[in-house]
Amino acid sequence: MTPDGALAGGPAVILIEPQLGENIGMAARAMMNCGLTDMRLVNPRDEWPNRHAEAAAAGATAIIEGVRVYDTTEAAIADLQMVYATTARPRDMTMEVVTPCEAVARMKADETGCVRSGVLFGKEAKGLKNDDVALANAILKVPLNPAFTSLNLAQAVFVLGYEWFQLGEETEDAVLAVPKETRLATKSELQGLFDHLEMELDDSGFFRVREKKPIMVRNIRNVLQRARFTEQEIRTFRGIITSLVKKRKR
Amino acid sequence: MTPDGALAGGPAVILIEPQLGENIGMAARAMMNCGLTDMRLVNPRDEWPNRHAEAAAAGATAIIEGVRVYDTTEAAIADLQMVYATTARPRDMTMEVVTPCEAVARMKADETGCVRSGVLFGKEAKGLKNDDVALANAILKVPLNPAFTSLNLAQAVFVLGYEWFQLGEETEDAVLAVPKETRLATKSELQGLFDHLEMELDDSGFFRVREKKPIMVRNIRNVLQRARFTEQEIRTFRGIITSLVKKRKR
Repeated sequence: MTPDGALAGGPAVILIEPQLGENIGMAARAMMNCGLTDMRLVNPRDEWPNRHAEAAAAGATAIIEGVRVYDTTEAAIADLQMVYATTARPRDMTMEVVTPCEAVARMKADETGCVRSGVLFGKEAKGLKNDDVALANAILKVPLNPAFTSLNLAQAVFVLGYEWFQLGEETEDAVLAVPKETRLATKSELQGLFDHLEMELDDSGFFRVREKKPIMVRNIRNVLQRARFTEQEIRTFRGIITSLVKKRKR
Repeated sequence: MTPDGALAGGPAVILIEPQLGENIGMAARAMMNCGLTDMRLVNPRDEWPNRHAEAAAAGATAIIEGVRVYDTTEAAIADLQMVYATTARPRDMTMEVVTPCEAVARMKADETGCVRSGVLFGKEAKGLKNDDVALANAILKVPLNPAFTSLNLAQAVFVLGYEWFQLGEETEDAVLAVPKETRLATKSELQGLFDHLEMELDDSGFFRVREKKPIMVRNIRNVLQRARFTEQEIRTFRGIITSLVKKRKR
């Protein structure tokens, strides 16, 4: 984050007449979670700085300290080129309505062209006034359960931040985490487990019906394959077999 | 929503030892926003029902009323077949780590095969214990700013719900909302505005340098095209031209 939040990446988050410090703080925390830095307040109900906001920010102090406060929405967006208004209610206006996913894609593309964006969030319960919506280029509407669309303020900010952060994300959809001291077992190590287990099962009389042995072996091998053993776990399981056998042989 | 929350769609949300009623309520609200219905609590710190939770649920009473409380995580997940553990911290375990997006896709596919899923959320600040993580099939990790990954409990629940809801969503990325009483202008109506404006500009001497007129006309038409006028707005703007001209001619 640069000393001037306005110069850092991502859209500005502009809260219009926020009422509860807690919500401002939770919104700041959500921004920090997602790498957004530029928070602006228009006429907050309570004084600023606000200790409830600081507490709820839960460590997102860089955001709270960078907050700028304005008297009007016009002043808060004066340096921006593209403004989105978040609203769940349909407004009787001719205006483009975009999803969060589409909005952040546009913001990212715009940022490449040095076009700065901001997003307006209305006050708790009431949302944005039509006059504020009319200052925006487009409406940002979060697709939600139509029977219950009223989002908590911090959740609304979080949706924006979450989608923004995912844009640049290259996390694999799914990856098997393996502790540093081990690694996935090789097929040869797994075969060692199969051989060990099947030998002891033979020895213990588990395969009483000989003609069923092939299918039973396949089924046992299947479930063990699915578990994706590490080399360490193969050793643990071979120890388990040895231990169980010892009890029987005693 | 069915009378028994467990029969409704979507994964169960299982909060382990939640401390603040407010967070339970906000999580319930987030679930309702996203069409999730099945909330379960394991050893909440405060008594249940909890008036702070009810207040923070902000109308998501169906979720709050459907909550089931358990003494152990094992009991809370007994009827489920797939369990995901949310955690930001790496654990020294061999376990698959999936993104929210991947997790909900799997849950949806599993639901088709009548496989029920649930997601474990740890207590505020501390997160899940390793013993709870070990009850899960996979870790659900939200890709976030690596310098600040600690999510508010309700935000974590919201990410799950948001991704779940988006799966079934078919909202257009961007659509121009137009008030019912009007419609986008046709090219012929727009041409009428162009002709009217250019005629009056000719008349007022705006195109002093004749050879520049073609490019000026193109530029004016360009910006007006971009505005995507409605038929109503065309009439308004033609009224504006007439009104401005009247002042000059007076």
